[in-house]
Amino acid sequence: MISLADIEKAAASVLDPAIWDFVTGGSGDEQTLRANRAALDAVAVVPRVLSGVGGASAATVLVASPSEFPAAVAPMAYQRLVHPDGEVALAQAAYSAGIPYVVSTLSSSPVEEIAATGAELWFQLYWLRDRDVVRNLMRRAEQAGCRALIVTVDVPVMGRRRRDIRNSFALPPSISASHLPAEHTAGAQLTDAKTSALAAHTQSIFDPAFGWEDLAWLAERTSLPVVIKGILDPDDARRAARMGVAAVVVSNHGGRQFDGAPPSITALAAIVEAVAGSCQVLLDSGIRSGKDMLRALACGADGVLIGRPLLWGLAADGAAGAYQVLDLLRAEFTESLILAGCADVHAARGLRTITRIGW
Amino acid sequence: MISLADIEKAAASVLDPAIWDFVTGGSGDEQTLRANRAALDAVAVVPRVLSGVGGASAATVLVASPSEFPAAVAPMAYQRLVHPDGEVALAQAAYSAGIPYVVSTLSSSPVEEIAATGAELWFQLYWLRDRDVVRNLMRRAEQAGCRALIVTVDVPVMGRRRRDIRNSFALPPSISASHLPAEHTAGAQLTDAKTSALAAHTQSIFDPAFGWEDLAWLAERTSLPVVIKGILDPDDARRAARMGVAAVVVSNHGGRQFDGAPPSITALAAIVEAVAGSCQVLLDSGIRSGKDMLRALACGADGVLIGRPLLWGLAADGAAGAYQVLDLLRAEFTESLILAGCADVHAARGLRTITRIGW
Amino acid sequence: MISLADIEKAAASVLDPAIWDFVTGGSGDEQTLRANRAALDAVAVVPRVLSGVGGASAATVLVASPSEFPAAVAPMAYQRLVHPDGEVALAQAAYSAGIPYVVSTLSSSPVEEIAATGAELWFQLYWLRDRDVVRNLMRRAEQAGCRALIVTVDVPVMGRRRRDIRNSFALPPSISASHLPAEHTAGAQLTDAKTSALAAHTQSIFDPAFGWEDLAWLAERTSLPVVIKGILDPDDARRAARMGVAAVVVSNHGGRQFDGAPPSITALAAIVEAVAGSCQVLLDSGIRSGKDMLRALACGADGVLIGRPLLWGLAADGAAGAYQVLDLLRAEFTESLILAGCADVHAARGLRTITRIGW
Amino acid sequence: MISLADIEKAAASVLDPAIWDFVTGGSGDEQTLRANRAALDAVAVVPRVLSGVGGASAATVLVASPSEFPAAVAPMAYQRLVHPDGEVALAQAAYSAGIPYVVSTLSSSPVEEIAATGAELWFQLYWLRDRDVVRNLMRRAEQAGCRALIVTVDVPVMGRRRRDIRNSFALPPSISASHLPAEHTAGAQLTDAKTSALAAHTQSIFDPAFGWEDLAWLAERTSLPVVIKGILDPDDARRAARMGVAAVVVSNHGGRQFDGAPPSITALAAIVEAVAGSCQVLLDSGIRSGKDMLRALACGADGVLIGRPLLWGLAADGAAGAYQVLDLLRAEFTESLILAGCADVHAARGLRTITRIGW
Repeated sequence: MISLADIEKAAASVLDPAIWDFVTGGSGDEQTLRANRAALDAVAVVPRVLSGVGGASAATVLVASPSEFPAAVAPMAYQRLVHPDGEVALAQAAYSAGIPYVVSTLSSSPVEEIAATGAELWFQLYWLRDRDVVRNLMRRAEQAGCRALIVTVDVPVMGRRRRDIRNSFALPPSISASHLPAEHTAGAQLTDAKTSALAAHTQSIFDPAFGWEDLAWLAERTSLPVVIKGILDPDDARRAARMGVAAVVVSNHGGRQFDGAPPSITALAAIVEAVAGSCQVLLDSGIRSGKDMLRALACGADGVLIGRPLLWGLAADGAAGAYQVLDLLRAEFTESLILAGCADVHAARGLRTITRIGW
Repeated sequence: MISLADIEKAAASVLDPAIWDFVTGGSGDEQTLRANRAALDAVAVVPRVLSGVGGASAATVLVASPSEFPAAVAPMAYQRLVHPDGEVALAQAAYSAGIPYVVSTLSSSPVEEIAATGAELWFQLYWLRDRDVVRNLMRRAEQAGCRALIVTVDVPVMGRRRRDIRNSFALPPSISASHLPAEHTAGAQLTDAKTSALAAHTQSIFDPAFGWEDLAWLAERTSLPVVIKGILDPDDARRAARMGVAAVVVSNHGGRQFDGAPPSITALAAIVEAVAGSCQVLLDSGIRSGKDMLRALACGADGVLIGRPLLWGLAADGAAGAYQVLDLLRAEFTESLILAGCADVHAARGLRTITRIGW
Repeated sequence: MISLADIEKAAASVLDPAIWDFVTGGSGDEQTLRANRAALDAVAVVPRVLSGVGGASAATVLVASPSEFPAAVAPMAYQRLVHPDGEVALAQAAYSAGIPYVVSTLSSSPVEEIAATGAELWFQLYWLRDRDVVRNLMRRAEQAGCRALIVTVDVPVMGRRRRDIRNSFALPPSISASHLPAEHTAGAQLTDAKTSALAAHTQSIFDPAFGWEDLAWLAERTSLPVVIKGILDPDDARRAARMGVAAVVVSNHGGRQFDGAPPSITALAAIVEAVAGSCQVLLDSGIRSGKDMLRALACGADGVLIGRPLLWGLAADGAAGAYQVLDLLRAEFTESLILAGCADVHAARGLRTITRIGW
Repeated sequence: MISLADIEKAAASVLDPAIWDFVTGGSGDEQTLRANRAALDAVAVVPRVLSGVGGASAATVLVASPSEFPAAVAPMAYQRLVHPDGEVALAQAAYSAGIPYVVSTLSSSPVEEIAATGAELWFQLYWLRDRDVVRNLMRRAEQAGCRALIVTVDVPVMGRRRRDIRNSFALPPSISASHLPAEHTAGAQLTDAKTSALAAHTQSIFDPAFGWEDLAWLAERTSLPVVIKGILDPDDARRAARMGVAAVVVSNHGGRQFDGAPPSITALAAIVEAVAGSCQVLLDSGIRSGKDMLRALACGADGVLIGRPLLWGLAADGAAGAYQVLDLLRAEFTESLILAGCADVHAARGLRTITRIGW
């Protein structure tokens, strides 16, 4: 277990195939999923030498949360699907690693139980048809001590995930979205031979008409910093920054939403330029090593969100497995910093990059 | 059957191998055929977020025909080769899906029978040596209620389709070009060990000397809007637009004519710029998903023509199979619109694209 | 036998493996050999439409020789290696096809016998250590009725052709350079376990110190138009044009000399620009279809030389096989002209090209 | 044995798999290792013709050392791992070939024994925590007659070489760093199931806080020309040049240190421009043929260092095997010069290059 790929193999061998497909799959032809990998691999980072600093500090502040290294746990639905300890175990790992954990609207464990781990929490919000539920979620997140509200904007409908459709994927009875009222959760457990229950469920409870005005409505109703997740166009990033968001997350939802979208690393530079320092820029979709983290920073990101690899770790060995993923990422990233001649995260953002064409 | 690739497999398993080759093959080394796919795959479309519109309308007007989504059935010869119901079945599917159907000069069913389906029809015209036949076809198309004349300009001779040559491909006796006088159809049924009967037949009846003056002659003799199909050079597009055509179709004939031609998606941008809005720009050659449709629109097309996939559907299950193809394309395209934050077809044309080099 | 690839397969099945390796191999890692193919495949040619001309004329004049289509037979050594009728058979094919045949300095048949076929001949000259032999070759070529002198400048030494080295390749006793005095030919037949006899022979008789002054010396001593073959750098092309050569041949010697050189199609545009019409520009190295010929012309060449494919045809079926290759090329090229909307060779040079990056 | 690839195969068949992995492996995902090869292959060099010079001289001066061809033996640790004669045998080969040999700080043979071969020596220096050892190494190198000090700056820590970690790689008892005091060498021989002993050893003795001031300190304390090795950023190269170094080595340590770094051939041009002739520019990482050497020179390098291929030769056949590698490189390089129309090394630096995108 010396690289994330080892842990991925371990997870693939223990998970139910349909759950593995749910975790690993993307939408459509999975072109964006594959392009995320290829585009990261195409970024070479030019190291500096003779910095004169022994070691490097990976510590940073993401949104308003101190973080041992520039990463947070991405919001991911139904983590109990891959391990009985689910969100709590993953938050324990985040706590041990000293990075923020993002609680999903579709968490299979309640935020209060997750908060009990001591982890620094952010709460991820979907825009639901039932506005009362949204209001309650915001309140509940604040009361549980969450430090940021991270609003996902790239799921007006769910992307067409063919693996889940072929598997007629549905949640088992023991797992549901613990933050939602019972009348809003049953749909995700109804097997239908022709579709994915999760897609149908999303369609029934998410409000696809989410707009900039709604985002303003949200921002007015919370004292927490607001992050918007799922931005790829620089005009959208600029508009978000002008609204006063604390950060944007450049993301294609790990290739699970609009297949055909550019890799997030490819979209990053224009967004960094567009927001011009007025808010932080985070990135997700495809980060699989400390080297990938350095690539993102050298291209202008302040930090990254880590998704699937943590489900691999969780599946393979619960909290310990998830921690091992974070520990590897931290070690690899710190080593990459040192090898690139950077004393800290700030220096990493000044590295030159050379992007090979042909991801 | 949840993607066009599933339907392709079904068609491959039911069709006679020589007919499959006729449908699927291209000319020469099939480089343009393959490049069409690769070039579409290389186009990433940058989605927008927070449009505030729930759902999206895919409806548009192509040439002068309202269409439920920005697609029309491409003109394809001898559709009864793949299914006994041939053109009539495919037109029924188009009617059900609410998009135009283009009747081929080489239709194996008469336009009047096709018109009886109620489908919005356009009539495709080849320039034949026998000018009387051309005149009669134009008249007949108008009388059958066709709404546009779509003139194919990229077949001065037939491309060298090696699969058909190796198969000594010829039409079975039961199938012929129903719009042509009997003396003009027999050649397509004569097996010759050294060539494709269709190539020989084309050579005998098509006039390779088709020129801009002839196009003007055609345009003067019809009250219908004229579309020219098979344009890849921007100067040709500009000239056509100045002649007053209603639309140009950027096409390499699905890789079946000049092998070595650029992918149509690659040629598109210069043509959109050249015509500068003075006529519509349609695209065909390689569209295989709703995502591909969005790619074409984001690159500036007003709509697309769908070819081979409809023959797959027709082969697999007649009108129902063809409809399934259209239904999938409509659903995928609409979802792509929503996921890209577009309320309608017009918004799609304003999306940014990032083209990876190396198709 | 409907493409050159079919004929290649036939040749591979009849030739002795060591001779096949000699014909097909390149130098070094064969990177330039492979790149020639890839770079041609990367050139898309944008066809024109509605030219109004039925058919197309492929005829042209290369150097001072009328040619039925813009190709000549490349100079190739020892053609009797692949077929007992050797150069005479290949010249017969060229005569039948109406294109020039280039007699090699290392021809295994005398120029007078080749001339008896009636073919339009050019004579290829290497710069030999024995200046008297050079003088005699020039005289003999003129007296045999050759119409141009084509001087090869890219063989100061032979490229390291590993296949020939591994095969300890040497000429059989029955084959030798018929134009050279006996004392200059024996070396090519001496098997040496550690090297290729042809490389050793070349080293012993070729003068590597060939320079611009020597070329001037040659040009002064002949009444024939002088062509120089093996140019890839535009400064060299410009200098040659200023010296008054009739043509330069952009060539990497079919990937057999300097491995690491660019594909000739890649080098072409800068050379066309450099000579600015003051001499013709021919191209060889990798032409395998009429489509490739059109690519070369669209990129600015006046014509091409055809090499290995003619040895395939010769090996497979003597003069008839070689003619079949030329006939296919002529047919494919003429079809390509028509499909690209060109009435003649001149129009082909005005076509747009789009070069994909990543050969 | 007619190419380096043949010798590589021979070495792979005789070496212990863990030692083979140590020699051949890179760090991380080995992306930089692979990219070195791909990027060199992407450089085409445009040859010149008619230089009028028979043959070519490959001789040059590297730093202050005359060299028969523009290459030196790269510093490589523990050469006795691959052959009992280790450094001495390799230096004999360098002596025979007339090129400099770089003695590693981690040499498994003492510099005095290596010097006895008569080879032109440079001494490679790591910056060690124990400053007295550094001082002593410098003295000892000078006294042994070394002609340059080559300071490696890209190993603040060792890159994560997964092959060595999986193999729990450690030195056998018979091999150690002969220049270091015994208390500093034992760690490299301690097998630890979880890591590579070499990585642990490096960490314990190397000073990661090596900076520009330390380099100045070194430079003041030696009369030898100073070369710094491991530069990829042009600003670092410029700073080194301003400090008065004799040369910089553009290198990514053969893909063994920062995985994610650009290929050295890709980084080269900006560095050549940055130093603007004020010092020499050498290159290593991936040179595997005389063609690769010419590529490096055409892109602006003054010479190259050769690493792994010499360990292959050493493993396969001791000093004779290593000499065979150098002899092949010299022969291939000289041939490449001649085929590219260059009379000497200086002319090679004036050749045009065309870089294909997509390494």
